[in-house]
Amino acid sequence: QGTRDHPPAQVALRDRLLSAVVSCFKRHGAAAIDTPVLELREMLIGKYGEGTKLIYELQDQGGELLALRYDLTVPFARYLAMNKITKMKRYHVAKVYRRDSPATARGRYREFYQCDFDIAGQFDPMIPDAECLKIVHEILSDLQLGDFVIKVNDRRILNGVFAVCGVPESKFIPACITVDKLDKMPWEEVRSEMVGEKGLSPEAADRIGEYVQLHGGLELIERLLQDPKLSQNKLAKEGLGDMKLLFEYLTLFGITGKISFDLSLARGLDYYTGVIFEAVLLQQENEHVEEPVSVGSVAGGGRYDGLVGMFDPKGRKVPCVGVSIGIERIFSILERRLEASGEKLRTTETQVLVATPQKHLLAARLKLISELWDAGIKAEMLYRKDPKLLKQLQYCENTGIPLAAIVGEQELADGVVKLRDVATREEVRM
Amino acid sequence: QGTRDHPPAQVALRDRLLSAVVSCFKRHGAAAIDTPVLELREMLIGKYGEGTKLIYELQDQGGELLALRYDLTVPFARYLAMNKITKMKRYHVAKVYRRDSPATARGRYREFYQCDFDIAGQFDPMIPDAECLKIVHEILSDLQLGDFVIKVNDRRILNGVFAVCGVPESKFIPACITVDKLDKMPWEEVRSEMVGEKGLSPEAADRIGEYVQLHGGLELIERLLQDPKLSQNKLAKEGLGDMKLLFEYLTLFGITGKISFDLSLARGLDYYTGVIFEAVLLQQENEHVEEPVSVGSVAGGGRYDGLVGMFDPKGRKVPCVGVSIGIERIFSILERRLEASGEKLRTTETQVLVATPQKHLLAARLKLISELWDAGIKAEMLYRKDPKLLKQLQYCENTGIPLAAIVGEQELADGVVKLRDVATREEVRM
Repeated sequence: QGTRDHPPAQVALRDRLLSAVVSCFKRHGAAAIDTPVLELREMLIGKYGEGTKLIYELQDQGGELLALRYDLTVPFARYLAMNKITKMKRYHVAKVYRRDSPATARGRYREFYQCDFDIAGQFDPMIPDAECLKIVHEILSDLQLGDFVIKVNDRRILNGVFAVCGVPESKFIPACITVDKLDKMPWEEVRSEMVGEKGLSPEAADRIGEYVQLHGGLELIERLLQDPKLSQNKLAKEGLGDMKLLFEYLTLFGITGKISFDLSLARGLDYYTGVIFEAVLLQQENEHVEEPVSVGSVAGGGRYDGLVGMFDPKGRKVPCVGVSIGIERIFSILERRLEASGEKLRTTETQVLVATPQKHLLAARLKLISELWDAGIKAEMLYRKDPKLLKQLQYCENTGIPLAAIVGEQELADGVVKLRDVATREEVRM
Repeated sequence: QGTRDHPPAQVALRDRLLSAVVSCFKRHGAAAIDTPVLELREMLIGKYGEGTKLIYELQDQGGELLALRYDLTVPFARYLAMNKITKMKRYHVAKVYRRDSPATARGRYREFYQCDFDIAGQFDPMIPDAECLKIVHEILSDLQLGDFVIKVNDRRILNGVFAVCGVPESKFIPACITVDKLDKMPWEEVRSEMVGEKGLSPEAADRIGEYVQLHGGLELIERLLQDPKLSQNKLAKEGLGDMKLLFEYLTLFGITGKISFDLSLARGLDYYTGVIFEAVLLQQENEHVEEPVSVGSVAGGGRYDGLVGMFDPKGRKVPCVGVSIGIERIFSILERRLEASGEKLRTTETQVLVATPQKHLLAARLKLISELWDAGIKAEMLYRKDPKLLKQLQYCENTGIPLAAIVGEQELADGVVKLRDVATREEVRM
């Protein structure tokens, strides 16, 4: 349930997409690592908030309690801690597993690809964070997915907001998870979840509402830095200071046009500690609608400075920031677009079909195709002793093979091969 | 237990190896499919003989009993049956899982890659089978792994041997599994396992011994076709006839020099029905040893005409033949060779480091690197506001970045960039 086979046409499209993403990661100097699909269960527990119940657990393997990885971030943090690595820029493209209620029509599966880029290490503030946002901008631009916006916020600013609104610290994470739903529910519902389920006071909720509905750019950051309450909060001040620096760097990268400082962005995961961000595509069909409507998140990430320390026996921290590209949703978009265009993606790369026009020439085909393979040429033949020439040429047309190398009795006698362009029917003897 | 993380140097080497294998598969016109790492448990049961006990099972997912895939062949057969596909040439490179006792020093893991190429469809005999052997020959030659031999046999010949030696049909598969151990144990031990554990009569075992210790080429096939007992057995005769045809095709491919018709080859899996084969590397260190010693199997496969039918509700059969490349063992060999050569594999592809020789030039670096990225150039910079030039150049040397693009105050004033060749220290202003 919630998984799927990928036929060749899907794999071909997915490979094209993944290679665009990986190219970008390599352009930014990342190295690849690989980790097992299995992790010790205890490594995954307590890292994902409400997601923990979606972890796939295996049967006891003689005392080893294993689970399928839930994302690529926790395995990366474990890898850094186990190998005592304090500095690394890595990417990882692999499948992850979530025992979620699948919504396959909307591209939500229980097994799906993640494409992660992360920078680990103690560096000057906001330089790696800015690069992560640049990467999202490059990938979404390269793939020509239409207009998008990258929402940015900072967990420290959110926590500062909660603090000055009178929320006790023990309720920061539940409040965060509720705020994160603002992109799917109106404020009234978010507010009632805060007061009802999460037990915040109605006054606190109202005060939070005044902040988390704000979004803008540098001018909003400046305004909040002057906010009488927020400016008194150490965490919020730090977060806002860094946000200002981030916007300076993004201005140098020339990408602030697509960036929105959005106080409603919270992200569901427990492990974020600083900057968080999420990219959403904007619907363009309904251009009469005043505000562009988001069609869902296609990338997200943030800073998690405490996660590596959770895996280190001495609790040594390695600050990290990273981004995950939501390849499955992008894949669905590209697939629909390909269907609409009527373009047929080739699923093989065969350059030439080795064919014979008469019977009893299997040996000639086998000899020729073997020479072609040995010369590195992508070649096929039909697995029949005596196939009809028409059938052989039809196979070329059906699978997009551009050339046919034909050896008949005459060609054999003359020591030549007839090379036929399948589309134009032009032939040369060579 | 029995799994491992792959650091960047290993991923770089593995990607190089996988790309050689995939190139070969594409050269032969195969398309890629992808299937979930999870299969319904019932799909895997009864397909692997003694291997069944090594299947990784998951906890009950609300009535779904799942397991991790054990190989890529059974998922391929299920895919064909579910989609009613009767003809396909596909490759699949992915990880599989076996709860085996790990022997990591010898390259045996519980999670490992398989690289499979299979041809499904009703075709003229031995043409696809010959192509599978050609593929093994090409890959092992391309990778320059040293001398190798590809052992070939046919389950029908083996079954014929068992029949004429007086083994009851119910004991064919157990007898097969025991014969398969002849590459690791002497005949005496194999014989005693047959008589002891498998309950064959001593006379039957002795008669089997006379056959299964034979190996050779076309002349052996001819001799066995004349064998008074075997030639009376329908199955054996069919198998020997096809084996002769196979050798004719392999002669046209020019690869019989590396092929050995070996009656001891049995292969452990239940699902094979015809030709089976296995490639082993030959040890070259001890050249005084008379017979070359095998250092283990690096590829294997065979024909399985009944497997797809097991997944089809109406039992419709799709004949298949395929090969699996033992990438992990080959990887270990290449890794040892790389270590011995002292060659250092780069783990990133960065072309240029953007550097500054003075303080307060972070903005210049951010602007330049952003231009380079947008132009598709692989570029890095240090995540420091004011790094020392020496540190920046050392980073190039440590990671193999060939060029440094330097912007200092003078370059900024002149509107140029100084491009430095890290190895030769030559500089040009541009």
